[in-house]
Amino acid sequence: MRLYGVGVGPGDPELLTLKALRVIKEADVILIPRTSKGLTRSVVGDLVKDKEVVEFDLPLRGDRRIYQEVLRRVENYDKVIYLTLGDPSIYSSFYYAARLVMPVEVIPGITSFSWCAALHKLPLIQGAETMAVAPVSRVSDVKADVVIAMKGELEGTVKCGSGYFTVNILRRS
Amino acid sequence: MRLYGVGVGPGDPELLTLKALRVIKEADVILIPRTSKGLTRSVVGDLVKDKEVVEFDLPLRGDRRIYQEVLRRVENYDKVIYLTLGDPSIYSSFYYAARLVMPVEVIPGITSFSWCAALHKLPLIQGAETMAVAPVSRVSDVKADVVIAMKGELEGTVKCGSGYFTVNILRRS
Repeated sequence: MRLYGVGVGPGDPELLTLKALRVIKEADVILIPRTSKGLTRSVVGDLVKDKEVVEFDLPLRGDRRIYQEVLRRVENYDKVIYLTLGDPSIYSSFYYAARLVMPVEVIPGITSFSWCAALHKLPLIQGAETMAVAPVSRVSDVKADVVIAMKGELEGTVKCGSGYFTVNILRRS
Repeated sequence: MRLYGVGVGPGDPELLTLKALRVIKEADVILIPRTSKGLTRSVVGDLVKDKEVVEFDLPLRGDRRIYQEVLRRVENYDKVIYLTLGDPSIYSSFYYAARLVMPVEVIPGITSFSWCAALHKLPLIQGAETMAVAPVSRVSDVKADVVIAMKGELEGTVKCGSGYFTVNILRRS
């Protein structure tokens, strides 16, 4: 089994990279964690309709057994693709699975904050400015000119998305 | 004139998004700021070979006249595409030009730090962790669990690139 972590971006199928598209087409089996409104699955839609797909629920906090179970189900496949919303390095479940099987390749994706900044036609940082990314619950723990608060809604910010999937852009200086 | 800001990602042509690819193909003229080793131009290579292309040098600090001059040169074109390495919202020159002509669309790109994390197969933030992005000169001004230092090299970090284009990943906690 060779494990590939693939970022599919924020939800717009046109924001897939050419590399993600290629690797998905070459896949022997595709792992898709279930996300709000089936967003991850909907990004790849028709691309995976003739593919072997394993969808699974993300665990409640701390319980990582599901990753072992899912990887066991696909251990006889060669090219195993793990899809993740946004980018695999930013708040993704991918590396919980990747700890159990060394990934052969990770393909970056468009982050939700790059997408949100683009929607609002807003630069995040220019020149020597600084930026921080934090869950809403830890916004007071970070120091930077611009703060991206995720995993919830915050008052008085420029926003994209809703509920747990909100991206909040907050300029502090 | 309709101005589109298009992030082309970190330098790998396969890390273009499908949307960037489409918009570049539809362009009437393409603006390309000259970057180290012609990287931005090389990402789009053959895609722009039959296109009108205007390359220009980025100004030394503070002098923004070049953006006016470049936009004046293309004012009679309809679909004007401004290419930028990485993502338009993160340390890009695009918004200096976009201040002079309201952009009609901004297309996000893969950031250099998502790319670097993917190369090293390294998560940046998981769970409730926080991250900051800063120029090397301002690393001491930010507070977060993980710091991405850009625009220079820093000792003792996980790195990608070199010189001014180095991405340094530094874990503080």
